[in-house]
This record gives sequence, C-alpha cells and structure tokens, in this order.
Amino acid sequence: MESKQTEISSIGEFGLIDRITDGIAHVSASTRKGVGDDAAVLDYGDKDVLVTTDMLLEGVHFDLTYVPLKHLGYKAAVVNFSDIYAMNGRPRQITVSLGISRRFTVEHIEALYSGIRLACEIYGVDIVGGDTCASRQGLVISVTCLGDVQKDKAVMRSGAKPTDLICVSGDLGAAYMGLQLLEREKVASAGQKDFEPQFNGKEYLIERQLKPEARKDIVDMLEKEGIVPTSMIDVSDGLSSEIMHICKNSSTGCRIYEDRIPIDYQTAVMAEELGMNLVTAALNGGEDYELLFTVPLAMHDKVSKLTGIKEIGYITEENLGCALITRDGSELPLRAQGWNMTQAQ
Amino acid sequence: MESKQTEISSIGEFGLIDRITDGIAHVSASTRKGVGDDAAVLDYGDKDVLVTTDMLLEGVHFDLTYVPLKHLGYKAAVVNFSDIYAMNGRPRQITVSLGISRRFTVEHIEALYSGIRLACEIYGVDIVGGDTCASRQGLVISVTCLGDVQKDKAVMRSGAKPTDLICVSGDLGAAYMGLQLLEREKVASAGQKDFEPQFNGKEYLIERQLKPEARKDIVDMLEKEGIVPTSMIDVSDGLSSEIMHICKNSSTGCRIYEDRIPIDYQTAVMAEELGMNLVTAALNGGEDYELLFTVPLAMHDKVSKLTGIKEIGYITEENLGCALITRDGSELPLRAQGWNMTQAQ
Repeated sequence: MESKQTEISSIGEFGLIDRITDGIAHVSASTRKGVGDDAAVLDYGDKDVLVTTDMLLEGVHFDLTYVPLKHLGYKAAVVNFSDIYAMNGRPRQITVSLGISRRFTVEHIEALYSGIRLACEIYGVDIVGGDTCASRQGLVISVTCLGDVQKDKAVMRSGAKPTDLICVSGDLGAAYMGLQLLEREKVASAGQKDFEPQFNGKEYLIERQLKPEARKDIVDMLEKEGIVPTSMIDVSDGLSSEIMHICKNSSTGCRIYEDRIPIDYQTAVMAEELGMNLVTAALNGGEDYELLFTVPLAMHDKVSKLTGIKEIGYITEENLGCALITRDGSELPLRAQGWNMTQAQ
Repeated sequence: MESKQTEISSIGEFGLIDRITDGIAHVSASTRKGVGDDAAVLDYGDKDVLVTTDMLLEGVHFDLTYVPLKHLGYKAAVVNFSDIYAMNGRPRQITVSLGISRRFTVEHIEALYSGIRLACEIYGVDIVGGDTCASRQGLVISVTCLGDVQKDKAVMRSGAKPTDLICVSGDLGAAYMGLQLLEREKVASAGQKDFEPQFNGKEYLIERQLKPEARKDIVDMLEKEGIVPTSMIDVSDGLSSEIMHICKNSSTGCRIYEDRIPIDYQTAVMAEELGMNLVTAALNGGEDYELLFTVPLAMHDKVSKLTGIKEIGYITEENLGCALITRDGSELPLRAQGWNMTQAQ
C-alpha cells in the first residue's frame, strides 16, 4: 500500500473518532442517540433486548501477517451478530472498543473500521458507541452487540429435550482448514520476497477463515417456516464443544452421526493434503459460525426439506452421555477440544 | 498474600468462568437471562435503554504496582456506571470482557472480579455476560454497561443554552493528586524492602484515585428536587475537557470562575507539596467522576441550596468561546488537556 499514512498523534483521539465515525447513519428505528454522548439511547418497545460481547487480541485471536485489517473488522462484528442470531434474535447495535499500539496509523484503523461498517451495513446494525485508547502491545478489539427478539422467543442453550433432532446449518471445518492453509503459506513465505501464496482451488477455505458470515438467512428461514428451535448455539469453538454446551445446559446427552456431519469438498481435500483427520477438524476446528440447534422429533419432515440444514443426530437422556456414532457403528465419547486458554499464551 | 494460587490452565477457561460467576444473583426485574448463553436477555418495558463501554489496559490505564486488583475491578465497573448516571439514567447490567496474561492466577482474577461484583451489589447492577481470553501482554478489561431512563428523559451533552448555569458535584483534582502521590511513593520504594508509603493525612486522595464512586446520589437528588439538567457529562478527562464537550455539542461557549471550582483541602496541600498548579490539576486532572451539568438560570435558587453542588459558571453564545475567569478577573481560554493517545504509548 502506497497510500498516505497519517500518525494518529497528529489528529488526536477525538480527531480519530470523528474521522472513523464520520457519516455513520442509523438504520434501526430503535436508535435514538448513537455515537457522541456518554451513552447511546435505545428505544425498545416491547421486545426483549439481547447483549453479547467478544474480545479479540492480536497474537492470540488473529495474526496480521495474513489477516487484512478490513477483514478483521468485518469478522469482529460478524462473530457478535452470530451470537445474537444464535438466540433467535436480530442484531441492532454494536459498540466497538479499540486498544491501538503505536505502529498503527489512522489508515490502518480506518481499514479496520471500514470492515466493521461494511458488516453493519450488510446486517442492518448501528454502531452506537465505543472507546478508543492506546495499547502498549498490539491491537485489542472489544465489540458488544445488542439485539432484540420478540418477547419470550429467545432460544436458549437450555431447552433441548430427549428425542429432539440435532440440526446444523452449512458445513463444518472449513474455517479451521483455512487457518492451517494460511499458516502453511506464512511459513513457506518466510524470508522470501514476492512470495505468491498457493490458494488455487482453496478459496472457500480462505473465505471461511477470513470473512465468515453470520447465518441471518437461517434464522429468517426458520421464522418463515414457523420453526422455533428448542435450543440453539453458534459454532464458534467447534461442533463438539457446542453440542456439549447444549447438553450441559439442557441436562441431556446426545448422539452425533459421524457420516452426517456436513463437510465441504475443499475441506476434505485440504485435510488429506495435510494428513489431518477430517472428522476431528469438523468436530473441533471452530470458527464456522454455523447455527447448531435442536427441534422436536415431530419437525423431522419439515426440517429435512430445508436447504442448507442437516440433521446430524439426536438428544438423549443425560445418563447416556455425549457420543459420536462412527461410520462402523461404534460410539466414541465426545470431548470438547475448543479453544483453550493455555494454548494461546 | 500467602493464599493458595491456582494456575488458570489447571481449570481451563470454562472452569474459570464457572468459578468467577458462581452465585451471581440478578437484582434487576429487567434481567431475564444473564451469564450462560450466547447473549443475555433483557426486558425493558417502555424505558429507553442506555449503553456505554470502557476499555482499561494495563500499563496505560493502571499500574498494578500500586493498584490492588479488587480496587481495579471496582473502578472498572464504577466508571461505566458514572457514564450512565451522566445521562440521567440508572445502570442495570454490565458485561465484562477480560484478556489475561499468563502471570495472573485464578485468585488474581477472583480478586479483580470481587471488586466488580462489590460495585454491582452497591449500585444494584447485574453482570450479564462477558468474554474471557488469553492475552500475550498484561491485563485487558473491557466493560459494557446497559442502563435505562424514562422515555425522553435522557440528558445529552447537547442541550445547554446560553445563560444556563454550569454546576458540578463534589470536588475536583483529588484523584489526579492521588495518582501523583502513588507515583511518588512508587519511585521512593524502588529497590527497598519493607517500604512504608507515606499516605498520612492524604487518605482522601488515595481513595479518590483507587476507589472512585459514581454519583448516583446526585442523580437521585436532582430527580427528587424535580431538576432536569439541560446537559450533563461525567468528569473523567478533566473539567476543562468536559465543559468543552458540552459546549461543542451544544454550540455554545462558557465562562468558568476559577474561584468557584470546588477543591478539597488535601488536594490543595498536595499540590503545594509537589509544587504543582492547583487550578491546572482541578481543570485537567481527570478521573474525578463527578457530574458536570447545566440548568436554566431560573433554577439558581433551587440549585444553590443543594448540598454537594457548586455553581461554577455559565453558558454563553458560541462566538464568545470557552474561558476561565481568573481570580483577578482576566479571561484565559480553556484548553482540553485530558488524556491524549500520544502520552500513553
């Protein structure tokens, strides 16, 4: 990038905020007052308000060697929207707090923010506040998202019942494979000038890792079909970890069929290439941001006709535990191997 | 502290969350679902919802050499409540996101959280969510607070009118002097064993820096007296910076009388001791978390009788600018010298 770089110090904190929030319009009727005061004023008539928050730290959650700042901003927003959809809600507002170290310029932060704004435009969400401060080490992003849902229609993790069907949208493991691919090319590029990363035929994996989408379309479709899940969660830490959250909160067990886990062709090819276990990647990879939900067994006919939804198992009594039914019919206990604090330090 | 220290890695992320959120009760009627799902569910009938957020970074906003973790947690919560009160609202819920580096143990985080919980208990606020993750460098705290206010009763920064009286609660500059004192003792203690810091007669300054309170009592009093400010802001960056926010947002100017700025005796003694300009400290020190607000001139009789409120100046037409009227009657232009990004890097 040869574009002009402006030191943040040259325009100051307020100058930076003015610049990155310039022209932000509000689209939600519930937004009465956004950026520019101590707090934002939101007007919710008789809806339930949803709030969720996520923190992203450089070197832990993202590596700017291969993550473009605009994509990072987009993802930081979308992962919060995904949490709201996972409650059967609609995201309405976000606040964005940034800790910024000295090596970032105004243009860098604008690029980051442009991704956040793009995500907000696409999903119909307002940026209503935030905080910006200096960081001594790397970039810190903290996003809080508010959403709403019709009264008593929020879908918790705790509502699953034995015999309920377990459903998942889209496919799993691709974002994780995308990360492996990016890491491989990063290693291969070390010390080389004009290195051309090899992503041919693997664009889907890269996109799933760098620019995930939240499944608004699935929530809309379920509403249109009159299907209210008994429980729901988004797949951020991996299918295994998420279904165990549902089971723990619902006091149930579950059975997941290995051969029903939806996996994209590119994911399978990449696993083969890297000599990794494909099912492990799909179960524990994480960052898929698909929706995992349960519906009563009686919904089977209705759900099985839906595009982009796969029935992958069923809920059991709690004492049966959580298990994967492998292709040969044996049962393997599920283990949550999602992101762990010890790995990232 | 000789108490048992547990490595976070030994109980994992979810273990840590279970531990620090164990026994949290909800006090607000509007809290339907708090910690433990993708998002919290809040039920606001016909109120306006307020949301504010603050990020605190180690080495930038706090120094753990002299800030106890419990106090830090208390302050992290209270500064957010202060923003909600500054809107004429009441804080109801917070989310707390933490980035934690390896040197922190479970007990450290529990101490931090106990301060947050204490603040929430005292102010009647629920912790409804958050995020916990590994940090590569130091502690990161991001708090978002939701509050409510009667419809159309939120007080913005933008409502001040020429001839309005400018009022401030409590006294100013003490938190800044407390910080100077703590820094002085930190330097004095360097390399010394069993060092005893000298805080005698300066306890108020230390308390204002380490354990500030939000002025719920002032908001309650104004409500009881039927006084609705035309504009309001909390003093976090310093009186000078805050009144200029009000004037900018209200398209006005202002005059502040130097001799009416409320300053505590200990603040004055400390400034003398350190050879610092007392008025500069009161104008630019920051972290006072007092409420700065404007009321119509006609309110003078009513406001002047209130305990803990001082009238310090008045709003003017915009073209007159913002100025301090010194003791000798001359006018000095006000300058915002609040916290600046360039300082902290």
